[in-house]
Amino acid sequence: MEQNRARQLQELITRSQLVVESADLINQALVHPTYVFENPNIGLAHNQRLEFLGDAVLDLVVARYLYDLFPDKPEGELTKIRAAVVCEAALARAAQQIDLGKYLLLGRGEEMTGGRQRPSILADAFEALIAAIYLDAEMEQAAKFIHGILDKEIEQASSCGNYGDYKTVLQERIQKQYTNNAQYTILEEFGPDHDKRFIAGVILKDKLLAQGQGRSKKEAEQQAAKAALEMFDERK
Amino acid sequence: MEQNRARQLQELITRSQLVVESADLINQALVHPTYVFENPNIGLAHNQRLEFLGDAVLDLVVARYLYDLFPDKPEGELTKIRAAVVCEAALARAAQQIDLGKYLLLGRGEEMTGGRQRPSILADAFEALIAAIYLDAEMEQAAKFIHGILDKEIEQASSCGNYGDYKTVLQERIQKQYTNNAQYTILEEFGPDHDKRFIAGVILKDKLLAQGQGRSKKEAEQQAAKAALEMFDERK
Repeated sequence: MEQNRARQLQELITRSQLVVESADLINQALVHPTYVFENPNIGLAHNQRLEFLGDAVLDLVVARYLYDLFPDKPEGELTKIRAAVVCEAALARAAQQIDLGKYLLLGRGEEMTGGRQRPSILADAFEALIAAIYLDAEMEQAAKFIHGILDKEIEQASSCGNYGDYKTVLQERIQKQYTNNAQYTILEEFGPDHDKRFIAGVILKDKLLAQGQGRSKKEAEQQAAKAALEMFDERK
Repeated sequence: MEQNRARQLQELITRSQLVVESADLINQALVHPTYVFENPNIGLAHNQRLEFLGDAVLDLVVARYLYDLFPDKPEGELTKIRAAVVCEAALARAAQQIDLGKYLLLGRGEEMTGGRQRPSILADAFEALIAAIYLDAEMEQAAKFIHGILDKEIEQASSCGNYGDYKTVLQERIQKQYTNNAQYTILEEFGPDHDKRFIAGVILKDKLLAQGQGRSKKEAEQQAAKAALEMFDERK
């Protein structure tokens, strides 16, 4: 490996606290196929096989986490939450957290058209990086790395992230029947500072449709939207 | 747990050489949802959350195995081979290998309509069983269990199983144009006993269409069919 590249990778390894014996697999995880196509004699494999493996490591780590975290949620909900956590957008955000784009090796075309910021490329590199850690340092380190970066994403997804975005679903439903939009208002706040609860109302045409409670205003609004949706479903 | 049930599970554990500390999760892996719906007060959870987790364990174990076994295959091929290995039919066959149907707890309706032999029920229970071993005895034991049962399936899938079943594809292609079927013949065998190779020919209307080589007669025939398909494609 070139000295400059080795130094660059060492920077990533230190900053992201990656526990690996060698930087070789980390390097491969950052090689986009276009780079190999343009430099066929460089003796580097691209990251797509690693991405295949990292995807499976990630799926299992998140599955195990959700299985333990939500002992009462049925498998269908766990599947949905996981899908939101491991979706391309979420993984690209995770990659951005550790500035992964900076370390990618890309073909010129990709480089010139903004490949370094492209969500699909970042998400693939992030999964490949997971595989690199898994192969070099075993499952425990890979799980630690994933948790360090994705737990917040999991928390969001399981409360009111992409999964269970009831407000959006309600809005789409309302637009089919009404010209008005749903409005949200906080009806009540209670509890001590460290354990606050909010009650939100969803309002349509000046009428309170439903209420919801949550630990944040956002969550209360989502719960209100959920209750309104259930009401619509019952009326059918 | 009832004594009879405990004895039954011990039989499964011994026969399948499962390394687990307790039979509780194994028991849960064998509970179909219909059984819980009919016996809500029995205090048993059904196996669907375990199936969610076992599916991820299985995917990773097979992904890792294929990644190591085929260092030169691109990720697209690995994905296809894995899909063939973890498909419902293959997992149901795996479940039948250890006679899993015998140990299922089913609702009466399922029992009466042949649920004990239903591939979807067997495949789910097999995945749930994988999760039970994984949770009770960690990844290594789960991987050992999977390899013991599925490696033959993986071998078939990667040479000439569902994935890359060129003979079937060729047959379908030929039936569109001809009334005859393709015939296969072994043209040559060579190599020492421990490293035999075969050359097969595919014949249509008494004409040799193409040849293929393999480590078994079956593989050689698949390769011959593949060559014939490539020939058809070139002619287009």
